[in-house]
Amino acid sequence: MEPTAPSPDRQSSGRKKIILDCDPGHDDAVALLLAHGNPDIDLLAVTTVVGNQTLEKVTRNALAVGTIAGITGVPFAAGCGRPLVRSIETAPDIHGDSGMDGPELPPSDIDLDPRHAVDLIIDTVMAHEPGTVTLVPTAGLTNIALAARKEPRIVERVKEVVLMGGGYHVGNWSAVAEFNIIIDPEAAHIVFNEKWPVVMVGLDLTHQALATPDVVEKIAAIGTRPAKFVTELMDFFAHTYKDAQGFDHPPVHDPCAVAYVIDPSIVTTRKVPVDIELQGTLTLGMTVADFRAPAPADCHTSVAVDLDHEKFWNLVTEALVTIGDPLTGDARTTQDTADVVHGQSASLTAGGVK
Amino acid sequence: MEPTAPSPDRQSSGRKKIILDCDPGHDDAVALLLAHGNPDIDLLAVTTVVGNQTLEKVTRNALAVGTIAGITGVPFAAGCGRPLVRSIETAPDIHGDSGMDGPELPPSDIDLDPRHAVDLIIDTVMAHEPGTVTLVPTAGLTNIALAARKEPRIVERVKEVVLMGGGYHVGNWSAVAEFNIIIDPEAAHIVFNEKWPVVMVGLDLTHQALATPDVVEKIAAIGTRPAKFVTELMDFFAHTYKDAQGFDHPPVHDPCAVAYVIDPSIVTTRKVPVDIELQGTLTLGMTVADFRAPAPADCHTSVAVDLDHEKFWNLVTEALVTIGDPLTGDARTTQDTADVVHGQSASLTAGGVK
Amino acid sequence: MEPTAPSPDRQSSGRKKIILDCDPGHDDAVALLLAHGNPDIDLLAVTTVVGNQTLEKVTRNALAVGTIAGITGVPFAAGCGRPLVRSIETAPDIHGDSGMDGPELPPSDIDLDPRHAVDLIIDTVMAHEPGTVTLVPTAGLTNIALAARKEPRIVERVKEVVLMGGGYHVGNWSAVAEFNIIIDPEAAHIVFNEKWPVVMVGLDLTHQALATPDVVEKIAAIGTRPAKFVTELMDFFAHTYKDAQGFDHPPVHDPCAVAYVIDPSIVTTRKVPVDIELQGTLTLGMTVADFRAPAPADCHTSVAVDLDHEKFWNLVTEALVTIGDPLTGDARTTQDTADVVHGQSASLTAGGVK
Amino acid sequence: MEPTAPSPDRQSSGRKKIILDCDPGHDDAVALLLAHGNPDIDLLAVTTVVGNQTLEKVTRNALAVGTIAGITGVPFAAGCGRPLVRSIETAPDIHGDSGMDGPELPPSDIDLDPRHAVDLIIDTVMAHEPGTVTLVPTAGLTNIALAARKEPRIVERVKEVVLMGGGYHVGNWSAVAEFNIIIDPEAAHIVFNEKWPVVMVGLDLTHQALATPDVVEKIAAIGTRPAKFVTELMDFFAHTYKDAQGFDHPPVHDPCAVAYVIDPSIVTTRKVPVDIELQGTLTLGMTVADFRAPAPADCHTSVAVDLDHEKFWNLVTEALVTIGDPLTGDARTTQDTADVVHGQSASLTAGGVK
Repeated sequence: MEPTAPSPDRQSSGRKKIILDCDPGHDDAVALLLAHGNPDIDLLAVTTVVGNQTLEKVTRNALAVGTIAGITGVPFAAGCGRPLVRSIETAPDIHGDSGMDGPELPPSDIDLDPRHAVDLIIDTVMAHEPGTVTLVPTAGLTNIALAARKEPRIVERVKEVVLMGGGYHVGNWSAVAEFNIIIDPEAAHIVFNEKWPVVMVGLDLTHQALATPDVVEKIAAIGTRPAKFVTELMDFFAHTYKDAQGFDHPPVHDPCAVAYVIDPSIVTTRKVPVDIELQGTLTLGMTVADFRAPAPADCHTSVAVDLDHEKFWNLVTEALVTIGDPLTGDARTTQDTADVVHGQSASLTAGGVK
Repeated sequence: MEPTAPSPDRQSSGRKKIILDCDPGHDDAVALLLAHGNPDIDLLAVTTVVGNQTLEKVTRNALAVGTIAGITGVPFAAGCGRPLVRSIETAPDIHGDSGMDGPELPPSDIDLDPRHAVDLIIDTVMAHEPGTVTLVPTAGLTNIALAARKEPRIVERVKEVVLMGGGYHVGNWSAVAEFNIIIDPEAAHIVFNEKWPVVMVGLDLTHQALATPDVVEKIAAIGTRPAKFVTELMDFFAHTYKDAQGFDHPPVHDPCAVAYVIDPSIVTTRKVPVDIELQGTLTLGMTVADFRAPAPADCHTSVAVDLDHEKFWNLVTEALVTIGDPLTGDARTTQDTADVVHGQSASLTAGGVK
Repeated sequence: MEPTAPSPDRQSSGRKKIILDCDPGHDDAVALLLAHGNPDIDLLAVTTVVGNQTLEKVTRNALAVGTIAGITGVPFAAGCGRPLVRSIETAPDIHGDSGMDGPELPPSDIDLDPRHAVDLIIDTVMAHEPGTVTLVPTAGLTNIALAARKEPRIVERVKEVVLMGGGYHVGNWSAVAEFNIIIDPEAAHIVFNEKWPVVMVGLDLTHQALATPDVVEKIAAIGTRPAKFVTELMDFFAHTYKDAQGFDHPPVHDPCAVAYVIDPSIVTTRKVPVDIELQGTLTLGMTVADFRAPAPADCHTSVAVDLDHEKFWNLVTEALVTIGDPLTGDARTTQDTADVVHGQSASLTAGGVK
Repeated sequence: MEPTAPSPDRQSSGRKKIILDCDPGHDDAVALLLAHGNPDIDLLAVTTVVGNQTLEKVTRNALAVGTIAGITGVPFAAGCGRPLVRSIETAPDIHGDSGMDGPELPPSDIDLDPRHAVDLIIDTVMAHEPGTVTLVPTAGLTNIALAARKEPRIVERVKEVVLMGGGYHVGNWSAVAEFNIIIDPEAAHIVFNEKWPVVMVGLDLTHQALATPDVVEKIAAIGTRPAKFVTELMDFFAHTYKDAQGFDHPPVHDPCAVAYVIDPSIVTTRKVPVDIELQGTLTLGMTVADFRAPAPADCHTSVAVDLDHEKFWNLVTEALVTIGDPLTGDARTTQDTADVVHGQSASLTAGGVK
């Protein structure tokens, strides 16, 4: 791919190593762009799993986003094509038939890693120092659960699991359950009950991450193809979220988890025991948080509570500026980033590329 | 408020007819005092059911409160001694061994109605005009559920069911379930699924009804035996709620339901579908409210959201003043009431008695 | 067997007092005829409950059978019109739209008892000596469960509960659940968990009580209107059981419970703990019997295992002979009974009935 | 290992290829000996999974049995150390602390395959022609379920799954559930719901496979170390099955599944839909078989009903004779086998073994 790619050659030291396990998905795409474009993230691998659409579709989408973003040197692997126990449930009313309806997707020249996502996750975690790799699942938790079962040693080796899913007071796929959890509640039960630190970035938080018109406008002003791609995603997302769930502006869930990894000050969290309901008629897949008392000392789960909306969207915008226009060889400079973030988007048109 | 009719011989016209189904219980006692002392309530019957303690104990407690409050001419009947399906679970850590630990209870000369509470409820509802009787359950819903099953016609005859129980975002007997619901979830399922209007005054609301020191002081200042009885109840309640659930001041749940009947402006509510989880491992007895969309037109359930703390406690205080000192023949005047409520409790000592 | 007292004015001494709680229902009708016509049964009351059809229909059917059978002096009362928790489920594919399709039903001049069935059951049990009244439910257990909850003292006062329902290895309304149990599993849970003796006459037994052609022929040969009524019921039943469940001859469930009360030697039973599954997806309403070890000494449940087919049908036939032709004033003699039972049905034609 | 090994060099053509997934376990050991010693079985792999004891213990036991039986050239791999969702439950009261108490176990020089059992299963199935490999799980189904989820193509490639587990009318770990299923019901749900042919060799069948004294005597008469090993296993098994479950003679479950693969005429089966209960309070892990109607044409599950006790034990005995005494280099001849099987065990003493 392009020779002048600005991003992945940063030094790994100090950067936060993550594996993004996703089902693109409009917001997964933004999460991937954020992870790739942010200088503090070392994206070790991208894995896919059935969720917003079939495994085949979300994998194709992931590769397309990789191409749009100019990601190189990062393995992409496909994982589980169905949940552990339940039947497949996808979300075409939110994400369309392709799973990422809206923009046109380019053909991708990224080759899939031959490994199963579960093995790629295990290999990657085991290949890095203990306590250095963060798992960032933004989809159903089938891959992560299977990895934990197949290689239990990853549990204490992983730094933490920062996942988009659930909601302690909000549901979207039932009154009290969220899509990523309810589509594979048994997998979620596995992930939440392993003793690694789990940060649940749920709907309570992500419903604060609305793509408001000013946000979209700011992104549009970047003027690159990836930025245009994001605005097209947001445009489609706005319509489906309005129609299906009555939102005025669409909540962009998945990048919130990446944002938390980048800068925990953007997302305030609270330690609280969380478990997954597997039996309820009305509550299947609920992430049951017990706020009745201070969390016990060994509590390994926490939930995201408040989002710094401005800082969050600045991170996304900055990442897009950093990514530049990989397909045409462009990349934005840091100064551009600052300009965009501070609203001086006019300077973007004149912006030189490093 | 009528000036010359301080106690229960006032005219029924315009007053709100209620049946109080309770398990005294400290806060049930306050609810009963409020119902009896408030001039806008026409207390048709008091029924008891297992809950905070055994049926025998809560029935004895109800009669004792009736005696303390000087209630006459109101039938008291005992109901179900155990939940429909589950085993008996009581709350001695909150209400003590007697179910109403703290004050000494006088012997009661009130005779129990020979009827089963279920039949008293049915008879009372059927004896009054349709749409005139409000059921106010402040305990497990066993009696109410059985009444609805035994005489289905009460469902459309009852004006509404204003119950203390549940919580849409708060639990106390599990992470997400409240005591009155979880002790007989099948009964709650019956009550919430019948098509009468149900107002759920749950923990979300009642945790705002704290007996703060200023409240207790104001009640103490009334100086009557019933008022002293309430302060003794609150004192015990404060200790157990601190020990068992970490509260700084005890939430006085049950009178909130009565207060809503008296003056709905004290408790803001929101229409939302509510159903009861009967199967969950973590969520059994949860009152599952679905806030995802505007409530449908035929939604018959609503939940209490915000309490006007001052108005609420004023109601309670006024009722106590109105009740006066029945065992010694005293009763307070309306002027006294106004004085107390407006903080001029000094006038109480000088206060003449009708 | 007393020769001159074919109907209900026989002495109570020595006879087995039963309350028949039913939802006629083809086989309920036969059960009622058997209970009425058998000299060893003292039928104290007949109560109805929603089941095979709506409460209104099964109550009308019960009264019609009472009229056909010439039952007088026995209170009939209607009970619950819906199960405790679940929605109403009836069985029109087995019992037709009327709940007792096939024969024409006469108008009935029996007046319903004004009491609710639950109260009639309670009053009847409490009015007789402890240990003398057997409850014989042949329908969903809603009435019985409510009676036990409303008046817990009946539990130790009842002699035993001999119910048609369930199956330890056989289901008919799901793979492992039977209709009478699955339509109100919570009620069944209540009944099986109270400490009275429960004899479960389930499908394992009643699928042996087939109305084979020789049986139907023998009944037809009696020549009375009640007997003709039974053959018409059996004819309809044969067709629906063939169509709906593939039976060559219809199983006539309910009279098996009555037969057990009359003569326990007709139905061998086995003591085994039985409980009701309330949570299963595939097993809701299963009567779970634990055969793994000898039943504990305090085991209060037993299950029917083997039927003496010949003795059973002889009982039914004898009862029909005893009942005679009440609408025309005739009644069979003991000699007739013996003849029919021993196959000399030729004498019946000379018997001079219609 | 020993140079004169009689068994694994038979031609593969015509032999039935199996992967034995086990948790030795007394009866697993017999299953492994039967699979190894029978000339019609081509044992492709042995995999282990937590069950009767921890993964570490059952894996050590499997290797020890491999050594005792003289198995060479067959990969052994360890699999999952815990069930998918539930906590670990082992069976020390049946299998002892080691999981195979009774005989002394030799050290094993068999090297574990470095692959995870799940991968060994997948690789083996994918490396052979479609429709040629039978999976024979005799333990919890965790490995098999994970293999099906990780590589869904094995489902149509496998010939069939012949598993020991479940019971359509019999339970041993609850009233209605069997150990291998209830320890990982979600895994069982996965395996029974995939569309491969599943033959459930459950307790209904295996409780016919009793190690009666004549059987044990016949095995003892073989006189080899593997035979002695089996009698020691049976001796321990007899005691625990007597103590824990009241059996007069222990049921030797697992080799029944292998026997069915060798000669389906030994085990009569019946096609019937079977599914796994995941929600029941009393029925969790029940293998719910629906016998209400003839199995549909596409029914892919069947259950074992009747065992030919004599043929079964002859197979086991023959296998032991065939295996001979690998640790001392001996092996039985076909004539020996015939002699033993036909009761002429006297010839064994002349056979010159140890």
